[in-house]
Amino acid sequence: MSTAEAPAAAVGVPDPVLIRGTGLLGTSIGIGLSAAGSTVLLHDPSPSASGVAQDIGAGVAVDLDGDALRDTPPVLVVVAAPPDVTAAVVVDSLRRWPGAVVVDIASVKEGVARAVREAVERGEISAADADRHLGTHPMAGSERSGPVAARGTLFTASPWVLCPEPTTAPAALAAGEALARVLKATPTRMDAQAHDEAVALISHLPQIAASLVAARLQDTADASLALAGNGLRDTTRIAASDPQLWVQILAGNAERIVPALRSLRDDLDGLLDVLEEPAAPGARLGIARLIAEGNAGRARIPGKHGTPPQAFAVVTVVVDDAPGQIAALLEAVGRTGVNVEDLRLEHASGHRAGMVDVSVLPGCKDELVSALADAGWKVV
Amino acid sequence: MSTAEAPAAAVGVPDPVLIRGTGLLGTSIGIGLSAAGSTVLLHDPSPSASGVAQDIGAGVAVDLDGDALRDTPPVLVVVAAPPDVTAAVVVDSLRRWPGAVVVDIASVKEGVARAVREAVERGEISAADADRHLGTHPMAGSERSGPVAARGTLFTASPWVLCPEPTTAPAALAAGEALARVLKATPTRMDAQAHDEAVALISHLPQIAASLVAARLQDTADASLALAGNGLRDTTRIAASDPQLWVQILAGNAERIVPALRSLRDDLDGLLDVLEEPAAPGARLGIARLIAEGNAGRARIPGKHGTPPQAFAVVTVVVDDAPGQIAALLEAVGRTGVNVEDLRLEHASGHRAGMVDVSVLPGCKDELVSALADAGWKVV
Repeated sequence: MSTAEAPAAAVGVPDPVLIRGTGLLGTSIGIGLSAAGSTVLLHDPSPSASGVAQDIGAGVAVDLDGDALRDTPPVLVVVAAPPDVTAAVVVDSLRRWPGAVVVDIASVKEGVARAVREAVERGEISAADADRHLGTHPMAGSERSGPVAARGTLFTASPWVLCPEPTTAPAALAAGEALARVLKATPTRMDAQAHDEAVALISHLPQIAASLVAARLQDTADASLALAGNGLRDTTRIAASDPQLWVQILAGNAERIVPALRSLRDDLDGLLDVLEEPAAPGARLGIARLIAEGNAGRARIPGKHGTPPQAFAVVTVVVDDAPGQIAALLEAVGRTGVNVEDLRLEHASGHRAGMVDVSVLPGCKDELVSALADAGWKVV
Repeated sequence: MSTAEAPAAAVGVPDPVLIRGTGLLGTSIGIGLSAAGSTVLLHDPSPSASGVAQDIGAGVAVDLDGDALRDTPPVLVVVAAPPDVTAAVVVDSLRRWPGAVVVDIASVKEGVARAVREAVERGEISAADADRHLGTHPMAGSERSGPVAARGTLFTASPWVLCPEPTTAPAALAAGEALARVLKATPTRMDAQAHDEAVALISHLPQIAASLVAARLQDTADASLALAGNGLRDTTRIAASDPQLWVQILAGNAERIVPALRSLRDDLDGLLDVLEEPAAPGARLGIARLIAEGNAGRARIPGKHGTPPQAFAVVTVVVDDAPGQIAALLEAVGRTGVNVEDLRLEHASGHRAGMVDVSVLPGCKDELVSALADAGWKVV
């Protein structure tokens, strides 16, 4: 294959680009590539979805069989379709545009690769066609969905996993890397199985756990829910995610999720046995072991920038929730010039005051505390 | 009983106060009461713990059998001992100081009330003694522990549940309410069973789920963990909690946790069945149902100030993580004067840039966006 006919508007990204599927991710890619100077064409089975995507600057909506694509066929096709139909759209794209690299961004990778191989076995595409395909997964998203939630920087500072097969064409891999870099993500190579096992643990199990906990709250009394703190809010945030999308993700990665979920269920059964007789010999050891194993696993999650989790010093400031108070505090914190590592507003029910936790490197804590106290803030 | 001999230094809080147990919560109460003008005495089985608490301004460490307490017996005893020994310390305190109100703050309430009744049945204390006891639970805490993490405002803007029995003395209830108010918490009455059922759902189940998910990460490859995003971080944050404390909480509330955990396990078993044959008829419906039920439960968690969850508009700003960049952004946001509802730093591995999500009321979004853009910030 040749990409000689493809002047790279965005550095290294073949041009023009056709994005198939204008949900949150496809539209965000379109916005980012358009901003970088690429010629972006958009298609979605729902004309209103591709119309919205065009309206917010993701590219130009086209018909699959229209003049635009016949006159200027795409040199890069980004398949951002729902997980269930990704493989079919990849195969269709490989057939339609024999000169194009086809990159998909579905969040489960083995199934797509398998379906492409099967299409070769069935004679729908050639082995050379299959080599123009690259499976990828940008590790970005949101519990929000649809083109309206899209933003060109959705991928900024996130990993973007590339899963080349041994026979993947170098140009396909290069296009995937360029796509990730132009969108300011960090390309990371991984084989499809390792990727699917990883996301089962770091993405799909947390989603299942959050949904299972949140599902228990459907019939809880309001007075009980009023006691909820940040622990419950954080643990269940992703329970707000889209059921249609997650059906496809969980079904698509069932083979890798099941072993992890069985191991979780075994621990849960053990805990239930123990809690049914909490005074039995060894019961407390069983509970302590589970919490300690959670400690050990939690401690392995890297902090920002892939560095080991770091103990930041936390400075807590009490604020009234009157209009402008938090804004004034942010201004005051900013004026100190201390580098803020994280900042967290703590809310609680039934009260018009709040606390702000500002995380800084331990060596900066005293400076921040005295600067804020001098400015009249109530620092704890 | 009479509290006539107890001039209230902190409004309504009997004086002097003895705090038994100087961990995170007991020390935080001591700091808050001392700051409000109360005479605070401290005791802990570990002299080094009460010594640290004294050093950081929580009160004066005393011997239980020493002159200080003999000369000036406490009029309010706050039992902030570990959950396992709370009931014994409550009964001991009711026996030692017949003029005192005894308030405990253990996070499970039915067991303490039952143990106090049993002490009456065994003749260790009188029924009138038991009436001087009030069970309470401040809904505050931290995944950090120990006196060093203590702060006087730990309870600010949080609910503080009071669980009076029908026979509880009005003076005991009044002391508990005053204690909560002086520490700027919101007193909330609830019966012990309703409290224990509520915390099983909103606190203990999330802890178990977070620990179960985090425990799976113990042997995960570093390359897989490097893909982790805020979803995993949020879902497992409380998995960092103290095993010794949680053994006591989970064992102490086992009776209320087990039904909720069984219902969660049933849903989990159903999901496992479905994932083992994701192509079977009805399988996808089963997955969608779980995620949708999670949506429904999640939507019931109130937002700040007990108001219904509100859809805020989110303004996203891209920043380099160079020193001072986030500080400068905070200053700029503050200078706009727009009331910030929440602020979230999004980090990712292997990258020196980040995104800041600023949540504001939808009506304020345009003002914030244009003010930040005018100031040269990269707003999405």
